[in-house]
Amino acid sequence: MRCEVLAVGTELLLGQVVDTNSAWIGEQLAAAGVDCLLQVKVGDNLGRIVRALRDALARADAVVCCGGLGPTPDDITREAIAEVMGVGLETRPELVEVIRGIYAARARSMPESNLRQAQVPAGAEVIPQTRGTAPGLVCPLGDRVIYAVPGVPHEMREMVTRAVLPHLAARAGQRATIRSRTLRTWGIGESALAELVAPRLAALEPAGNPTIAFLASGIEGIKVRITARGAGPDPEYAADALLAAEEAEVRGLLGEAVFGVDDQTMEAAVGVLLAGSERTLAVAESLTGGLIGARLTAVAGASGWFRGGLVSYASDLKRDLLGVVEGPVVSAEAATAMAEGAARLLAADVGLAVTGVAGPTEQDGQPVGTVFVGLAGLGPTSSRRLQLAGGRETIRQLTVVHAGDLLRRALLHAAGSGAGGGGGGGAG
Amino acid sequence: MRCEVLAVGTELLLGQVVDTNSAWIGEQLAAAGVDCLLQVKVGDNLGRIVRALRDALARADAVVCCGGLGPTPDDITREAIAEVMGVGLETRPELVEVIRGIYAARARSMPESNLRQAQVPAGAEVIPQTRGTAPGLVCPLGDRVIYAVPGVPHEMREMVTRAVLPHLAARAGQRATIRSRTLRTWGIGESALAELVAPRLAALEPAGNPTIAFLASGIEGIKVRITARGAGPDPEYAADALLAAEEAEVRGLLGEAVFGVDDQTMEAAVGVLLAGSERTLAVAESLTGGLIGARLTAVAGASGWFRGGLVSYASDLKRDLLGVVEGPVVSAEAATAMAEGAARLLAADVGLAVTGVAGPTEQDGQPVGTVFVGLAGLGPTSSRRLQLAGGRETIRQLTVVHAGDLLRRALLHAAGSGAGGGGGGGAG
Repeated sequence: MRCEVLAVGTELLLGQVVDTNSAWIGEQLAAAGVDCLLQVKVGDNLGRIVRALRDALARADAVVCCGGLGPTPDDITREAIAEVMGVGLETRPELVEVIRGIYAARARSMPESNLRQAQVPAGAEVIPQTRGTAPGLVCPLGDRVIYAVPGVPHEMREMVTRAVLPHLAARAGQRATIRSRTLRTWGIGESALAELVAPRLAALEPAGNPTIAFLASGIEGIKVRITARGAGPDPEYAADALLAAEEAEVRGLLGEAVFGVDDQTMEAAVGVLLAGSERTLAVAESLTGGLIGARLTAVAGASGWFRGGLVSYASDLKRDLLGVVEGPVVSAEAATAMAEGAARLLAADVGLAVTGVAGPTEQDGQPVGTVFVGLAGLGPTSSRRLQLAGGRETIRQLTVVHAGDLLRRALLHAAGSGAGGGGGGGAG
Repeated sequence: MRCEVLAVGTELLLGQVVDTNSAWIGEQLAAAGVDCLLQVKVGDNLGRIVRALRDALARADAVVCCGGLGPTPDDITREAIAEVMGVGLETRPELVEVIRGIYAARARSMPESNLRQAQVPAGAEVIPQTRGTAPGLVCPLGDRVIYAVPGVPHEMREMVTRAVLPHLAARAGQRATIRSRTLRTWGIGESALAELVAPRLAALEPAGNPTIAFLASGIEGIKVRITARGAGPDPEYAADALLAAEEAEVRGLLGEAVFGVDDQTMEAAVGVLLAGSERTLAVAESLTGGLIGARLTAVAGASGWFRGGLVSYASDLKRDLLGVVEGPVVSAEAATAMAEGAARLLAADVGLAVTGVAGPTEQDGQPVGTVFVGLAGLGPTSSRRLQLAGGRETIRQLTVVHAGDLLRRALLHAAGSGAGGGGGGGAG
């Protein structure tokens, strides 16, 4: 069973709106065990929509066509489907009543143009609208089918879930599901990661289920995605069992490099470890200007373990408030003094500090991309020198994740819990 | 001149990653006057990428192919293009050296698989990589061309801007151009904005050049985009002249609500005003956790006017370090004390502070979304109460822009320059 997605709308091609509908539909199709091998965006042009539909039907059993069902003159998906079916449009009186009723319920007068939405290609079945004014369509073409759904995301999602997916499943006559889980890693390059996981790739090759793929996500590290297909009486259970077993295998190969699963961020992982060990954290930031604190406090419950931070952007503040001695502020000495100073000034168990050169020009004789991370309160105070590549914002963002990862690994290895140095909670 | 976009990656079809690259490329093509009539997503499958490329070349003069240039076995865009061109892949020794050099500069050992990125279809021209390890490609096919660029957004954007768009423009012979300029506004709702600009919409209607459109951009305010078409011997000059004249008209109607142009952020606008009046700034943040400092220091040259910040997430820090008196920390009194305390502690001319309830639960008897902004050093110390809607992260982000706008307007109205309270510069 193959199903393509056709997203209709000139605004999508012009980049005025990012097409998130196709991605969502693709995810649902995968979960339903339907192959989606191509997704296309086309503008509001009759000839090109017709051609795109014909091309899709030549490759796939079904097409989900999204958008172009509204009341304005540029909404021409109905006309395009009718042309592909070789039929005319007919006005369905029951749809006219429904659309008039929607406007009456909203106590608004209805422009007559809205009744275009009551027109349906002859032979098509209507998917009743429950949210917007446009109905969806199920349009049979021999042994193939076009589903038309609105482009407004919440209308589309409701209609796909309620009508399109069950219709597709019934056509496919099978119950299978595809599920995936993503292990998020930091500290190993993409090709080295691939070499580490190579034994699993080889072991999985013959059966082809589950499969493993790598996604480089820039400053968010590299993701290892495990995808499993489940069948049988309980396909979800079967897929989840495969995922769990493979996750254990991959974690065995990658160890501490795995910091999170699916949407779990580095800062969320750090938060879990701090909360679990009852330690509080303070940060001292320079080149990142507050980014570390901003990301840590995006984690719900951060007030339980995050005390606060000092953004010591001006060099004299590092000396006056954090106890950094005279000398270069981009140095290991400055980073360790800042980490200790932050823990002291903000009364936290653990102090994390970053100082470095984000660019555009060098500083203290250090080239752009030189960053020192200091860590205090987890064993002896220590520092790490990083040499990062990229522009100013990339260096800042990479610094945040590197610093978070150093803290995470130190917390993993630290015994016991915090000294209780932190004061009361409560973030205003 | 027609150009299609082909985004390569199974993760795009499965909805694990939303394809924002195609939208961005579509926007750039439109701005360059190149028609983009179709955009396609295809998975990491050699046969299907080859077919998609051939189909695209049958319809368009050029294809921008995005993704699949990395070092892992599922990166097969190079192979697919070579097959479409009917040539083999050849290893370019100079690319091998560049890739080895990138790893050497990062002091990391290079897995041999990375050298796949030095392979190029015979006859293709290389677009040098400046950010990642994968070079781009310009692949001629008779009178058509395929451009291959990486899928990592910032690498892709840099390469399209630097190499692909100029190459396309040269091929097109540059006869006409479409250019646009966006005025960014804050503080006026979309319908009120439309009413204010209505006289210009009416005046422009007959000629249809330039045109004006409104884009609601959520937490970044509402954008007023002016688009002009230029022709004649110097189409860029003609378009720019139309844009400049219309910008003056629209600014006359919107006044101070316009805070920036195109990519100019609120924090960049604030930086210009601070630098121009020789004032320095310090911030005290609570619910935003460092976001204000992070955004201010994203502005190049921020070290000239930004002293630093205190993230007083724990309530006791507001009292101990900023001089907030006992009582509710989500209050006008706390905000003004924090603003004065930040300016004092961090030795700045101006102090900006925010305290509020980001959620998920109320605090100090104040509902979620209550935020107080304090401002000190520009006339009498003042505060403003905001009631913001949305989830935790939306409230945090809205707070940043609201606080920036309050500071911006206060700077616009403040006479003279700073008292010189700030110390030396130099951000580590």
